[in-house]
Amino acid sequence: MHPDLTSVRDALLAGRESAAEWLDRARAAAALPASRHAFLRHFWPQAEAAAQAADHARAAGVPLPPLAGLAVSIKDLFDVAGHPTTAGSIVLPADRPAERDAAAVARLRRAGAALVGHTNMTEFAFSGVGWNPHHGTPANPVTAALDPATPRIPGGSSSGAAVSVSTGAAWAALGSDTGGSIRVPAALQGLVGFKNTARLTPLDGAVPLSTTLDTACAITHSVRDAVLLHEVLADRRVALSCRPLSGWRLAVVRTTLLDGLDTTVAAAFERTLATLRRQGARVEELELSHIEQLSQIQSSGGFAAAESWSWHRRRLATERHRYDPRVAQRIERGAAMSAADYIDLQQARSAWIASMQQTLNGYDALLSPTVPIVAPPLASITDDDAEFFRVNALLLRNPSVVNMLDGCALSLPCHGPDELPVGLMVWSTALRDDTVLDVSLAIEAALQHAGSRP
Amino acid sequence: MHPDLTSVRDALLAGRESAAEWLDRARAAAALPASRHAFLRHFWPQAEAAAQAADHARAAGVPLPPLAGLAVSIKDLFDVAGHPTTAGSIVLPADRPAERDAAAVARLRRAGAALVGHTNMTEFAFSGVGWNPHHGTPANPVTAALDPATPRIPGGSSSGAAVSVSTGAAWAALGSDTGGSIRVPAALQGLVGFKNTARLTPLDGAVPLSTTLDTACAITHSVRDAVLLHEVLADRRVALSCRPLSGWRLAVVRTTLLDGLDTTVAAAFERTLATLRRQGARVEELELSHIEQLSQIQSSGGFAAAESWSWHRRRLATERHRYDPRVAQRIERGAAMSAADYIDLQQARSAWIASMQQTLNGYDALLSPTVPIVAPPLASITDDDAEFFRVNALLLRNPSVVNMLDGCALSLPCHGPDELPVGLMVWSTALRDDTVLDVSLAIEAALQHAGSRP
Repeated sequence: MHPDLTSVRDALLAGRESAAEWLDRARAAAALPASRHAFLRHFWPQAEAAAQAADHARAAGVPLPPLAGLAVSIKDLFDVAGHPTTAGSIVLPADRPAERDAAAVARLRRAGAALVGHTNMTEFAFSGVGWNPHHGTPANPVTAALDPATPRIPGGSSSGAAVSVSTGAAWAALGSDTGGSIRVPAALQGLVGFKNTARLTPLDGAVPLSTTLDTACAITHSVRDAVLLHEVLADRRVALSCRPLSGWRLAVVRTTLLDGLDTTVAAAFERTLATLRRQGARVEELELSHIEQLSQIQSSGGFAAAESWSWHRRRLATERHRYDPRVAQRIERGAAMSAADYIDLQQARSAWIASMQQTLNGYDALLSPTVPIVAPPLASITDDDAEFFRVNALLLRNPSVVNMLDGCALSLPCHGPDELPVGLMVWSTALRDDTVLDVSLAIEAALQHAGSRP
Repeated sequence: MHPDLTSVRDALLAGRESAAEWLDRARAAAALPASRHAFLRHFWPQAEAAAQAADHARAAGVPLPPLAGLAVSIKDLFDVAGHPTTAGSIVLPADRPAERDAAAVARLRRAGAALVGHTNMTEFAFSGVGWNPHHGTPANPVTAALDPATPRIPGGSSSGAAVSVSTGAAWAALGSDTGGSIRVPAALQGLVGFKNTARLTPLDGAVPLSTTLDTACAITHSVRDAVLLHEVLADRRVALSCRPLSGWRLAVVRTTLLDGLDTTVAAAFERTLATLRRQGARVEELELSHIEQLSQIQSSGGFAAAESWSWHRRRLATERHRYDPRVAQRIERGAAMSAADYIDLQQARSAWIASMQQTLNGYDALLSPTVPIVAPPLASITDDDAEFFRVNALLLRNPSVVNMLDGCALSLPCHGPDELPVGLMVWSTALRDDTVLDVSLAIEAALQHAGSRP
């Protein structure tokens, strides 16, 4: 059990430990077997300089920026000045360093973060599984601690991002979420993943998957850390009311999002709702048939296929053999889409969002299982394409609803001790990020009070 | 020569004339031969009620809203509650009245306007010529006064809109501008047409041509009227510095936009620059090779083709024979465009805009001929498709640069007495609307002072 970033920062501010000592510990964690395949490259000299700067500033009485000297990892699709960006692929040049930081990276650096390295990911962020045949797939370190005999998937696409936080190699991880890529690995590893409303955080200097749906956001240990990282990444202050659980109007969405839960997820979700209700939460049940319309709306192909085909098609023409075939075949689905279908998709999405907003207007937040299953064994998807795509669709099903909604969602752990991790997704419509964070803080406190999470 | 809307409003406020009297005059103007084909339907009872309300309010000492009781016409692609919207076509149902006003219409009504009728237009707003084979093409009433033997094109697509202002049937006309549809008829009829930055005015309740490029905006007699109409349509205040002409940094764009000027336009443009410089204007000459990139950027088809194909394709499948073939064939160009080409077009446009903005940053506004030719004879394009498309491309060439730029532009008359109308386009990048209006006020005053316009 690792402390959260806020605790570590408190320890630094109080002078109980130095940033350099904490960074040494992060570096040792990155070298553990549990961190295998989590990083594609490290930036230790830069990170050490940031930690030392924080220690010197503290000693001199200089006020410290929010992440001063603290280890933060960067998903390999964000540019870091002086290092290549390969997006988990072998087709992007590994010998061409970025000239400047991506906008989100620049904000972390300005907040004093010690950037420890580029984390592994699903190639080009396709798939929620976290599988990467080029660089190896990091095993889920949290399930490994409970069930060492069965290596399980880390979740993706921000696979190494989540592993870096789980193992203590970083206190927070910058990643991206297009259909669940922050929330899925957070859920499968018992971490917090907050996908803000996309427009609030900048994507300049990031390799795109879907320009319509991509969101730059972070994985953390706690909801308060999620607030802090969001404030840095969005360059804004979050307004929290911190009202009690009973002060919010919540609902469980019944349509589709509760289908096919495995026994662990079903039990954890039901127990969580019971705990919240016992502590005063008003949780209604809501049919939301809109969700069934999504498959029709996306029937000509989704945003990610068309938009990634636009980005990759020239490279695929000559280098397809160097792509993960499971990724290439998903990108190629975009080739058949016409401009009119794409425009219709945009308009159908806008109309769907308007209709969802009208229905959800009276609720502060919705509660759903982040993903319907616990992390499946790595072996089950390694060689079986059909099983891979089945699992992938299942993992992305619930989170991707929020991307289509242009909404915001936080996944927080809701499993019991000695259970495989299960995520609870707290979500809402566009720009209600502060409410989602506010509600999540209350839920996290209620679950910790009840002792029903590790 | 008609007074502008502001003068009429001043006369009303001073009690020199009533709104009802002014409306009677507008109604008489709408019945003149010069107004033939300008309107597709009238809303006289509504208009009379608005005029009477204004007169009663004035008599009672109630403060009057900005357009109180004044005649304003509406292009036939904006919904007016209780009346059908046919977009100049015969395929949209003429027996299905709109349930509510389009957002722009609602703002005019809230400002007290007397809405006099739906104006004729190029079918579905395609083409800058103003040709309409279904409802007849209004002849240009301004050129007719000088050269009655040669009926000339009104300019389009807001053809009836401009004619309604030229003949005095309305003090201002609501129209739309996707590639020049406000500015072309304004230029060819010696009126003022202001195309604001698209996002500033609402398009809800308007039949779309290109959802990316469409702008709701107005034709007026004067720049001060353009300011007033923009304030109503954008629901915001324009900030004017009213600094002298010498206080602005201006430039004439040499690349492409000065090609192929006819002798009238070339002479009027050169004389206008000389007049402005004599009155202290600093006008530089600017090569702007970016403009040559536009044909490459749009080589896979433009926004209007893809976006109108998306809107029309189901209707075209069964009713193509009821479309103007010149319109149908332009819409059908969108069928071949792929989603990836469309996404590339969006991204290429964004990059082009960024590069243009960087180059134009130091200039307050640019000066160009709105269109390179005076209104050609109607007979020249009636039966000759090749000539029609050549003229159309020439008319849209300059104005459409500003739509691709996501910018703003005002066309104001710059011809001499007894010359066919010529428009001067004052333009800039996105959201510099107030500067364009400010500069245009100074230019209008300078030209009137010099007596070089009617």
